[in-house]
Amino acid sequence: MNDEFKKLKQKLDEVKDICLVSHIHPDGDSIGSLLGFGLALENINKKITMIKVDDIPYKYKFLPQVSKLKNYEENKKFDLLIVLDCSDLDRLGSFKHITENARYIVNIDHHISNTNYGDINIVDHKAAATGELVYNILDYLNMNINKEIATCLYVAIATDTGSFRYDNTRPKTHYIVSKLLEKQIDLKRVTFEVFQNKTLASTKLFIEALNTLELYYDNRLAVVQVTQQMLMKNNAEFNDIDGIVEYIRDIETVEVACILKEIKEDEIKIGLRSKTYVDVASIAKVFQGGGHIRASGCTIYNNISEAKELIIREIGLNLR
Amino acid sequence: MNDEFKKLKQKLDEVKDICLVSHIHPDGDSIGSLLGFGLALENINKKITMIKVDDIPYKYKFLPQVSKLKNYEENKKFDLLIVLDCSDLDRLGSFKHITENARYIVNIDHHISNTNYGDINIVDHKAAATGELVYNILDYLNMNINKEIATCLYVAIATDTGSFRYDNTRPKTHYIVSKLLEKQIDLKRVTFEVFQNKTLASTKLFIEALNTLELYYDNRLAVVQVTQQMLMKNNAEFNDIDGIVEYIRDIETVEVACILKEIKEDEIKIGLRSKTYVDVASIAKVFQGGGHIRASGCTIYNNISEAKELIIREIGLNLR
Repeated sequence: MNDEFKKLKQKLDEVKDICLVSHIHPDGDSIGSLLGFGLALENINKKITMIKVDDIPYKYKFLPQVSKLKNYEENKKFDLLIVLDCSDLDRLGSFKHITENARYIVNIDHHISNTNYGDINIVDHKAAATGELVYNILDYLNMNINKEIATCLYVAIATDTGSFRYDNTRPKTHYIVSKLLEKQIDLKRVTFEVFQNKTLASTKLFIEALNTLELYYDNRLAVVQVTQQMLMKNNAEFNDIDGIVEYIRDIETVEVACILKEIKEDEIKIGLRSKTYVDVASIAKVFQGGGHIRASGCTIYNNISEAKELIIREIGLNLR
Repeated sequence: MNDEFKKLKQKLDEVKDICLVSHIHPDGDSIGSLLGFGLALENINKKITMIKVDDIPYKYKFLPQVSKLKNYEENKKFDLLIVLDCSDLDRLGSFKHITENARYIVNIDHHISNTNYGDINIVDHKAAATGELVYNILDYLNMNINKEIATCLYVAIATDTGSFRYDNTRPKTHYIVSKLLEKQIDLKRVTFEVFQNKTLASTKLFIEALNTLELYYDNRLAVVQVTQQMLMKNNAEFNDIDGIVEYIRDIETVEVACILKEIKEDEIKIGLRSKTYVDVASIAKVFQGGGHIRASGCTIYNNISEAKELIIREIGLNLR
């Protein structure tokens, strides 16, 4: 790893025009890492372009200087492209062609599936977040981490670890965060914006979705559903119910949790979570979906009640 | 503080028979600190009695050797009594008389209101949790912190900081936790037991309580209620709805959140939370209650609908 750090230092010394980018459907780690690293590079007088390939979710709009994240101007060329938190370049979505306009690519990521697509690859799947790696880089390069940069990296790490609850959290994670907090981060504000600020519409939809809770197979399967009618009534969107499938998974008797989202009348998106032994990726695969053993998804082209019947039957085959 | 640490070291060297105790309605910090310190003292061959003055909540029953927490045998005498996480001795409830059977009292706490009732007072309100202070003590005394002790202290700190989200979390908090995680704590298990394991009864009660959500004063006040009939129907208890008042406070338009709990037909317990400016302690005081500016409670001796009307009117006077 130290070789890659050294190569990065040399490269950064050489170049002037640097572009930073991260993945579609941006989360806290992607935005926080990108913005944190970008602001640090601005401080050493590099010409920095930070690109958003998608809209910034509301809860991250409080981040310092987040307005510096801009859309990509077609065909602009860069000496150096830094790609953050992307396991492969397809994660840039329709902006993948940016890579063709960069002379050199630095790949900074913590996903185990990373394809090492960069000229320099700073990839460590033991890191809890890409934000950890950015911290390590800034520390190695002796770059100043001010309060703004620390706030960005804190958000990156706190979101990807579920506030340090997930078991990707390691001793070094907390050590890094202790260093970031020394920069006088406004923790009260961060907690409020990122974790505690629910819209009224999303709360009402959450309550209405919870009211559809059904339990099957001796309470080992929990199912909720969200219909178009429920969305309209509450003036809400699907991403307003983020977290509900994890919420019902955490009921003590439940092994599998399932959410059905009615995209259209005959298109039902299904999210699956399991707790200890069911491989929900294999269940999703039956319906041409995919994912991980504990979290997966698929789409069933059928009406919601038939889709529900199909998925419940399939899950039943996998319960002990 | 170093003087007190030194005095504690001398005292521990002298005595054989040590009793540890914490407060009624035990939380993660009280149980984790007590058990963590108790297990460490056992390891240096002291005769240790760990007393529970109340039942241990279900979610802490996984803690290592938690069964060592016993009821107090009347009139047993101790060389040394270590009182943890108690701002004053009234926090021992009906077990306050234990203090009369101890020759010497050590007071270890982080509450700003601590009355320094000990012969030795290790009190630091800047510590996020009493668990932090126990860590500092074990570190000063060069006592071995094994995986079991680390797990207890981790739970103490994680629960009192809301998983490091509350702004009592300081750089040192994360530094200490990084040291605890080095002891190979099973973070997955801790997260599951402490934060993710809801009973079906509590989930159903939570949903039913959320269904009573009412908003007043341009959505600035959110109110929910739990009646005896709801408890009975779901075979649940009042502490099954811990967290619901914070849940409704976090709606973006809400400044004050209020929960009404029907203890008896004419006895309504009220919990109040505010977000940024309303002093809910002063509202609770109108009904002979008390608490802090952002979290308080009182009891109104009236039926639930009249109690609701009274508290809503009073809250309204305090909204801008």
